[in-house]
Amino acid sequence: MNRQELIQQIKAKQSFLCVGLDTDLQKIPSHLHGAKDPIFEFNKEIIDQTADFAVAYKPNIAFYEALGPRGWESLAKTLEYIPKDIFTIADAKRGDIGNTSGLYAKAFFETMDFDSITVAPYMGVDSVGPFLEYAGKWVILLALTSNEGSHDFQVTTLQNGKPLYQEVLEKSSQWGSPDNMMYVVGATRGEKIGAVRKIVPDHFFLVPGVGAQGGSLQEVAKYGMNKNCGLLVNSSRGIIYAGKDKDFGKAARQEAKILQAEMADLLALYSEL
Amino acid sequence: MNRQELIQQIKAKQSFLCVGLDTDLQKIPSHLHGAKDPIFEFNKEIIDQTADFAVAYKPNIAFYEALGPRGWESLAKTLEYIPKDIFTIADAKRGDIGNTSGLYAKAFFETMDFDSITVAPYMGVDSVGPFLEYAGKWVILLALTSNEGSHDFQVTTLQNGKPLYQEVLEKSSQWGSPDNMMYVVGATRGEKIGAVRKIVPDHFFLVPGVGAQGGSLQEVAKYGMNKNCGLLVNSSRGIIYAGKDKDFGKAARQEAKILQAEMADLLALYSEL
Repeated sequence: MNRQELIQQIKAKQSFLCVGLDTDLQKIPSHLHGAKDPIFEFNKEIIDQTADFAVAYKPNIAFYEALGPRGWESLAKTLEYIPKDIFTIADAKRGDIGNTSGLYAKAFFETMDFDSITVAPYMGVDSVGPFLEYAGKWVILLALTSNEGSHDFQVTTLQNGKPLYQEVLEKSSQWGSPDNMMYVVGATRGEKIGAVRKIVPDHFFLVPGVGAQGGSLQEVAKYGMNKNCGLLVNSSRGIIYAGKDKDFGKAARQEAKILQAEMADLLALYSEL
Repeated sequence: MNRQELIQQIKAKQSFLCVGLDTDLQKIPSHLHGAKDPIFEFNKEIIDQTADFAVAYKPNIAFYEALGPRGWESLAKTLEYIPKDIFTIADAKRGDIGNTSGLYAKAFFETMDFDSITVAPYMGVDSVGPFLEYAGKWVILLALTSNEGSHDFQVTTLQNGKPLYQEVLEKSSQWGSPDNMMYVVGATRGEKIGAVRKIVPDHFFLVPGVGAQGGSLQEVAKYGMNKNCGLLVNSSRGIIYAGKDKDFGKAARQEAKILQAEMADLLALYSEL
């Protein structure tokens, strides 16, 4: 999916909601456990119920990988089931030397057909480049995350006076463009999102951590939105585990609808969409 | 496998050779293509022929992941086939927020039974910690790699005058110990390996890139070895693709044997093993 199509979808749905498919066998309703593929059955219902309000789905690959080969089967079926006009994100945090990154790109862009993948920056340009060679596909590079460990290296001040995450943004924004790169920017610090927005005014940000991880949607929009929205805000547990019984899909729909309504107001306030 | 067992194995085999299982359908001998699982058949022969000379095997996970669920089946069978007294490394470069890293740890330490996994440091302490909670398992953290992109961030000077990789080494060495952490240290720069050795005198290093990527084994040993060896030096393509026909296993054996003999000399020269 290209940038214009993504922006059009945000405008049409008045939403920048990404639903995180962090699907955990321990947490899905017990009536699904008898199904042949409980993970896929759960995701199918979540997708059916939230597709009106979501512009992106983001399976967290670790949840599938932990199940072995059958987890990858569930993931492939889930990806296949997502409507083609909705953006898909493989939240995989991959990254290796060039030829190996090329194989990760093949895994997520050819063997599967994701629109985008999250990538870690530590190994530099040749670890990111192979993902950018796919026309119509996106890299979502880790810039500033919201976890405890983000303080260890990401905000460390360099000799040039900049924090490391700024160096990552400035260098990597030369490797791609706002048409094929986005950044992961953590949601728990509004003013930090504003700092990132100044460095890369046009790129989309994938913002995890609104909801369960404590970020505020209003703060994110106030500091992070640009005229084309420029945000995909993720919610996982708050939506997919909103209900615990047979009505879990309806509970998810309700939560997604509430977030979408809030997002429509914020789009009116801070964007041109 | 614990540290003492690894050191004993190095001493017994007079080798610190890691064989990289970067197994590529396009590169394996054509007579294997008719097999039910060509990747596994290839790996099986490589393992049979090199187990006398190798102390570790390192499947590069991207090669398996690119094949979808059947790649993961081949990987699981390969891991199962490796003799239990040889160290195993999942070269996966994973790393995410705490609970997600916990699921990657589950994937590689429970669903599969690898001894170790390579991990990326950018997300900090809670992205690494969950892997360290497994007794008898190891994290091999990216410190200084040998690819082109290692110049982008790893060697950037911080305000405190140190390069980023040094900060990564100093902080992360507090998270674990030489009993459950190793570091990836690139092989193309002998003096840089010496600099890393000064910072973490007791940790094992996984050194990729000897052979095809151009590193010199002598340089690595001279600058990187400690009294317990402290090195696992990887060779992938130089061994596994040494032959191109039905004799590929014997060709691999021959290459492994040559490297082992060289390593025996270097152990005598620079270690106490």
